[in-house]
Amino acid sequence: MTGRVTLVGGGPGAIDLLTLRAVRALASADVILHDRLAPTEQLSQWAPQAQFFDVGKRPGHHRVTQESIHQMMLSAAREGNHVVRLKGGDPFVLGRGCEEVAACREAGIPVTVVPGITSAISVPAAAGVPVTARGVSKAFTVISGHDPLSEDELRGLVSLGGTVVILMGVGTMGHTIESLQRLGLPTQTPVCLVEKGYSPQQRILIAPAQRILEVAAQAKVRSPAVMVIGDVVHLAADADDVGRSVLDTSTMPALQRAEEIQLIRSMVGALA
Amino acid sequence: MTGRVTLVGGGPGAIDLLTLRAVRALASADVILHDRLAPTEQLSQWAPQAQFFDVGKRPGHHRVTQESIHQMMLSAAREGNHVVRLKGGDPFVLGRGCEEVAACREAGIPVTVVPGITSAISVPAAAGVPVTARGVSKAFTVISGHDPLSEDELRGLVSLGGTVVILMGVGTMGHTIESLQRLGLPTQTPVCLVEKGYSPQQRILIAPAQRILEVAAQAKVRSPAVMVIGDVVHLAADADDVGRSVLDTSTMPALQRAEEIQLIRSMVGALA
Repeated sequence: MTGRVTLVGGGPGAIDLLTLRAVRALASADVILHDRLAPTEQLSQWAPQAQFFDVGKRPGHHRVTQESIHQMMLSAAREGNHVVRLKGGDPFVLGRGCEEVAACREAGIPVTVVPGITSAISVPAAAGVPVTARGVSKAFTVISGHDPLSEDELRGLVSLGGTVVILMGVGTMGHTIESLQRLGLPTQTPVCLVEKGYSPQQRILIAPAQRILEVAAQAKVRSPAVMVIGDVVHLAADADDVGRSVLDTSTMPALQRAEEIQLIRSMVGALA
Repeated sequence: MTGRVTLVGGGPGAIDLLTLRAVRALASADVILHDRLAPTEQLSQWAPQAQFFDVGKRPGHHRVTQESIHQMMLSAAREGNHVVRLKGGDPFVLGRGCEEVAACREAGIPVTVVPGITSAISVPAAAGVPVTARGVSKAFTVISGHDPLSEDELRGLVSLGGTVVILMGVGTMGHTIESLQRLGLPTQTPVCLVEKGYSPQQRILIAPAQRILEVAAQAKVRSPAVMVIGDVVHLAADADDVGRSVLDTSTMPALQRAEEIQLIRSMVGALA
């Protein structure tokens, strides 16, 4: 009997930002293929019967190719398993989820998608930065540092004038920031870099566009980091403590206790 | 003793797309102020001790002003309550969440934000449309039909060329689609309208930009609906059944049974 595949959006890393639907999918998984940025803390407790495979790609170290991920996913499903492809953020935001859905369809394997909390919105929020704010920004655009825009597209982005959020942008930050300024982005536009958004090692850097590269180099910012460009960044800077009061970015420590995991498991069992 | 306020992103309407953190917040709420688009199904079972207030604004019927929402929120918190402001989607996506946070801060009321699954990404997904797809669209922009872009901003949006998602756009659809075409959007660009994305009444309409207004008028599309403009819409049209196989948009029927609600309540109690 053919199995099935569920692409699950794992959210920005805090385990309690999983949705109930995601928890339910994990609880019935036989095989889990997870990314580097998916919330893997206590994963074995959420899906006690599942086999785990880390297929995370690290910048500069493409350990598992996208083609291999497809092959693992499809062959596990062909063996009759419920395969959960656990991805960081939302499966359809710059994460090749679309290709994974297409691979399943071509292979005739049933596939469903569980949306997740995207880092593009929730990581700025963790720094106190709303991607939109009445009177400040009425639009936001999300782009990837791994798939840079052309000169014309960047010019359009500057004319559009809303908030810009860049995922996976650490490696190409210099090019992006310099191009945007050359194409008309005011040099005083505030930029916020949020490194490791939902971990205790979270760092928030804020500087005007003309200084952010210097500040980031000094602080040795590393991936994963989300960059936000636009006047909404002022709203974080206005907060007493750069937003840490706005959003509790900690995971639930209570979840570490076995009896609570047990409770969640029974809940999920009842819902299945 | 002063209470506190939690802004909770309620997601696109399916109750099981609430996060664990949102469920925990609801379980400890004394007062809940909810929007029209927040998932209110069985809400009294999720927060059995809470008082509920529907502060939803319907297009053309501004029943409760934003100022009144602030006043209700702050006065309930000043009386010592844990006030949950339950919003549709994500609190920081075009939903005035930023103003609500600011109102709390100005009043000295502790406020936290729980991110939610935004309709801007999850409703297109429910129609099988990924907002980004490698080789098709490497950027997406989210705008509001209630706060239209200027001519120059729209021109920038067309040059940028990624996916465009419009929330609350039914009333201003004619203006938006006509302006975009006048400013260079190819008339053959596919447009998808998803009405009532996560309800059993979901309707999906797909047509090229030059025909979508006629199609929408014929079908009498009403709010709430999410509009997606861009080549990613072809990916839905390629699917056998316009995406219904991709995403299970139903809520969990199992959640209706009292014993399961009870299980979730005990889980949440243990986590609190």
